Amino acid sequence: MPCIQTKVNVKLSQETERSIKAKLGEAIALIPGKSENWLMLTFEDQCRIWFRGEDNAPAAFVEVKIYGKAPGAVYDKLTARITEILDEELGIAADHIYVKYEEVAHWGWNGSNF
Amino acid sequence: MPCIQTKVNVKLSQETERSIKAKLGEAIALIPGKSENWLMLTFEDQCRIWFRGEDNAPAAFVEVKIYGKAPGAVYDKLTARITEILDEELGIAADHIYVKYEEVAHWGWNGSNF
Amino acid sequence: MPCIQTKVNVKLSQETERSIKAKLGEAIALIPGKSENWLMLTFEDQCRIWFRGEDNAPAAFVEVKIYGKAPGAVYDKLTARITEILDEELGIAADHIYVKYEEVAHWGWNGSNF
Repeated sequence: MPCIQTKVNVKLSQETERSIKAKLGEAIALIPGKSENWLMLTFEDQCRIWFRGEDNAPAAFVEVKIYGKAPGAVYDKLTARITEILDEELGIAADHIYVKYEEVAHWGWNGSNF
Repeated sequence: MPCIQTKVNVKLSQETERSIKAKLGEAIALIPGKSENWLMLTFEDQCRIWFRGEDNAPAAFVEVKIYGKAPGAVYDKLTARITEILDEELGIAADHIYVKYEEVAHWGWNGSNF
Repeated sequence: MPCIQTKVNVKLSQETERSIKAKLGEAIALIPGKSENWLMLTFEDQCRIWFRGEDNAPAAFVEVKIYGKAPGAVYDKLTARITEILDEELGIAADHIYVKYEEVAHWGWNGSNF
C-alpha cells in the first residue's frame, strides 16, 4: 500500500516513464514489507514548479505515501535511490529534488481499509 | 473542512463528474460533523497511473483530507462507499482503487484557521 | 524545506504566477527558519474544483507542506497572507479558499533526508 507521486517540470516520454516505473518498483522493496505488487505510481510532467525563486532548471517533487511506518534509515536509502533514478532518467540535479514522506494510518483498498 | 481529491486514469465526462460529485456530497456525511456544505472536491482524469507494474487497467487514487479526526470505522464505511461510486460511475474495479486518509490539525478557510 | 502547492480553477497567466511566486516567497518567512531559499512551489490552474456542491465560482485549494513543526499562530498568519495573495492576484474570494497544512517528519533533498 505505498503510492509514489512524481511531479517534474520536464517532459517525460512514455519510454522514460516506463523505465522509471520499473526502477521505482524495485526501489520500493527498500521498505520492509513493501513491493511493486502493492505499489501505485502517478506521474505528472511539464508541471509548473518553482524552486528558490526560479523556474528555469529541471526540478522534481516526489511524495512517498505509505501505509504504516518504517525506520528513518529506510527512508534515507529510498531518498538516495529515487534521487539517483530521476537524475539518471531525466537529468534532474539532486539538489533540485525534494522527496517527502507521509506515513498513513488509514488506507483503503478493494472497498475496505487495511 | 474535508477535501476529497480523485485521480483516475480514465476519461471523466462532465456529466459523470457531476454525478460523482453529488454522490460524494452525500457520502461525506458518513463522517460525523461533515457535510457537502463544507466539502471541496478536485478531479483529475486521464492521469498517468501505474498499479502493480501495469498501466493498462482503470485505476484510481483518492485522497480524503479532513480537518480533525474520526473513528476508523467511519473511514471503513467511507472507503466502501467511495469505491462503490467509482465502480458504478467509471467501471473501476474495487481492487484497483486506493483511498487514503489524512487527518489534518491545521486548516484554513476564509483567511484564518479553524 | 517547505513546499506550497496551489490548485485553482481559474486561468493563471505566467505573469500572475510570477507575481504570486514572489509574494509566497516573502510570505514563507512568516514560518521561523523558512525562506524562499528553500521553498518549492507548484501551480495548477483550470483545475476541476467543486465547493459546497458548486463549481461556478473561483476557488483554490492550497497545501502547505513543511519539514518540522511550527506554532499554530504562525500558520494563522500564513493562511491570512496566502488568502490575501490569491484574492489580490486572482480575485478568489476568501471564503472559497482552503489552506491545509502538513508537518512532515521525513523529507529528502540532494539525495538524503534532513
